[in-house]
Amino acid sequence: MLLMTNWLRFAECLCGHFLSQLMHDNLITYIVFLWVCVCAECCHHGGGPISSLCTPALVVDINKVKSNAKKMTERYKELGVQLRPHMKTHKTIECADIMTTGSRRCIVVSTLAEALFYADNGFEDILYAYSVPFDKVECCAALSERLDLFQVLLDHPDALEQLKKRPLRDGRLWHVWMKLDCGNGRAGVLHSQPESLKLAQAIDEAEGVELTGIYAHCGNTYNCRGVEQIQAVAQETTTLTLEFMEKLKAEGITCKSSIGSTPSCSHPVKDMARLSEVHPGNYVFYDVQQSVIGSCSLEDVAVRVLTRVIGHCPHRNQLLIDCGWAGLSLDGAGKLPTGYAVVDGHPNLKLLSMTQEHGRVEPISGKLDYSKYPLGTMLKLIPYHSCATAAMHPTYYVHSEDRLVGKWTPTRGW
Amino acid sequence: MLLMTNWLRFAECLCGHFLSQLMHDNLITYIVFLWVCVCAECCHHGGGPISSLCTPALVVDINKVKSNAKKMTERYKELGVQLRPHMKTHKTIECADIMTTGSRRCIVVSTLAEALFYADNGFEDILYAYSVPFDKVECCAALSERLDLFQVLLDHPDALEQLKKRPLRDGRLWHVWMKLDCGNGRAGVLHSQPESLKLAQAIDEAEGVELTGIYAHCGNTYNCRGVEQIQAVAQETTTLTLEFMEKLKAEGITCKSSIGSTPSCSHPVKDMARLSEVHPGNYVFYDVQQSVIGSCSLEDVAVRVLTRVIGHCPHRNQLLIDCGWAGLSLDGAGKLPTGYAVVDGHPNLKLLSMTQEHGRVEPISGKLDYSKYPLGTMLKLIPYHSCATAAMHPTYYVHSEDRLVGKWTPTRGW
Repeated sequence: MLLMTNWLRFAECLCGHFLSQLMHDNLITYIVFLWVCVCAECCHHGGGPISSLCTPALVVDINKVKSNAKKMTERYKELGVQLRPHMKTHKTIECADIMTTGSRRCIVVSTLAEALFYADNGFEDILYAYSVPFDKVECCAALSERLDLFQVLLDHPDALEQLKKRPLRDGRLWHVWMKLDCGNGRAGVLHSQPESLKLAQAIDEAEGVELTGIYAHCGNTYNCRGVEQIQAVAQETTTLTLEFMEKLKAEGITCKSSIGSTPSCSHPVKDMARLSEVHPGNYVFYDVQQSVIGSCSLEDVAVRVLTRVIGHCPHRNQLLIDCGWAGLSLDGAGKLPTGYAVVDGHPNLKLLSMTQEHGRVEPISGKLDYSKYPLGTMLKLIPYHSCATAAMHPTYYVHSEDRLVGKWTPTRGW
Repeated sequence: MLLMTNWLRFAECLCGHFLSQLMHDNLITYIVFLWVCVCAECCHHGGGPISSLCTPALVVDINKVKSNAKKMTERYKELGVQLRPHMKTHKTIECADIMTTGSRRCIVVSTLAEALFYADNGFEDILYAYSVPFDKVECCAALSERLDLFQVLLDHPDALEQLKKRPLRDGRLWHVWMKLDCGNGRAGVLHSQPESLKLAQAIDEAEGVELTGIYAHCGNTYNCRGVEQIQAVAQETTTLTLEFMEKLKAEGITCKSSIGSTPSCSHPVKDMARLSEVHPGNYVFYDVQQSVIGSCSLEDVAVRVLTRVIGHCPHRNQLLIDCGWAGLSLDGAGKLPTGYAVVDGHPNLKLLSMTQEHGRVEPISGKLDYSKYPLGTMLKLIPYHSCATAAMHPTYYVHSEDRLVGKWTPTRGW
């Protein structure tokens, strides 16, 4: 009966109350459904303990997610700065709801697929913070004409020309952020070059286009170790952005300003209160990398990859686990004494190497005691980079303490 | 009219003949559908030139796929050895059809998700060549009871015990391959240890279980450079496997034998004709890694990631492209003079580094001539490891020369 109740709870989760009621009334339907469940879902139980999951599986601790989101939200409410959370780490509706405290407004995305996904699910005020790709101008125009507020970003005069060539219908304006490179060294027009001011002016003056804001990503915080270094980069990025805003003001131009990265937004400097917005994303999950940088403690990390021991190799003093790069990604290679991840609760274990579906685990020192790790033993990997690990999973299993409470399905592609 | 015909062709591809016919009859429906297509699919045109694709996009050259598959099929037909192609690289129905020459029989998979996907699509004689995970025994039992032939693999007595605890219904047998480690150093019972023979005997003697074959993966060919080294490993793996078969024979046990890896199966040694089966997989796509090993030439590689220039960084002598690790994977780090990939037709370009959605490209020597790479320029990346790159894409765009001819949707998860 207990088994039946579990299955019914799972069925309810899968197919809604209706089917579950039907099964209460009809034993044959129930048996058929049981078979379908076994074949289609195997051991990915809903409602059960996380130990019932087939592995590898990405699990998300809902309480940590909520706590990480709440801290960031309250931090910027206190500072009087608009938090525009980035969706690129998780790409799910449920997590976006938590990060926007249910408003479904004011988010950043890294791909057009995310923009469409969130737009289709009732989100508004979406900033596609990616140097507007020429092949996607038409889709961006369609979104700008469809949503109350859709915003794009650029860092080159040629991109501005592309937007001008496609004026929006019904008197709508292209809402454009200009990306400024304040030392990160990736996209953006360099803050120190006269071209940066010229481009901002050109955006401001262009017909059918509005200069919405200046956007800087301080990804160079990822080279930091400790709060002091993070805050030095946060200060530099903020100062350079605010100086640029002053230059614009001198030209009679006012618009918003935004900087972001999880390290800087986890440890803001005072001057960040003078910005209009911040746009961190990874903080909702965090990861080992963020704990090494100093953005968070390892206890704040909300995700794990569950894996099981599938092989003993005493002649190599190794274990095999059922998580390879297909379940973890190769991010973090060579960066941790524990290899590609941290094995939660097993500080002497190192994830030495991975192939597609296998991981080789060995002790950092000494001989493995195989009696502690019989085949089937579940281990929990704390990912080095949660964005990269989440990207490998078509489903995230959400839990509260040890109970499964839901499944999240991310969007993928571009 | 031409545009309309293109859209209808695309609609037909997307929704089948029925919807296309409906649209012929109903202009309003057509207009609505057009809008849906624009919003949902944006610029991922079907039937158009590959230059019409939004980037990043994984494109598959159907003619190279067919040629690679045909060569492998004919090679083993001539040798009189059963080819059991591995699905792990592509995980699609269409490519499986090509690799099995339409028979939909005799394949290898690396995950249970693949096994279910192929079983649900009418494939038979599926070998789940992965040390049978204890959490998936029940699902494997269900597949064994449902298909004409489903086979599993193991390398530990405890796994055999798990199978014995779950006898199959209707007098069916567990079809079990024993994995032998012939020097690869990953899964498998070590060929030189007495345990290997003991385990094979135990499988053979177990009630409800059949010892179907001995399976060795010569992944150590991936350390080779050139045909001579590949064939040395192929010879060693074959010899050790055949010696093991002799030991079994001396105990009165006969069963099949199989070795595999794309390098060894691309350059078989004569003794491989004495094996029952081979099980390569990557060969259908190949990649830069395989060309470096010597399995193929760079011209044989059937996949590219299309990407576009989205940024100019003259102060760093770099380009930015719209392909980061989300579109390519991080596999191959530090292994090529051209960085994470080969930029097709641009031997002086190096893919220096990637973040989630950005790639930094610089010249191997000299100054970049930006006039050659205006924003929007399409580049084609030849992946270092096609298994890892394909794993990042929810859709593969299939082309014949420069025309798109279809889309393939891989299965994901475990």
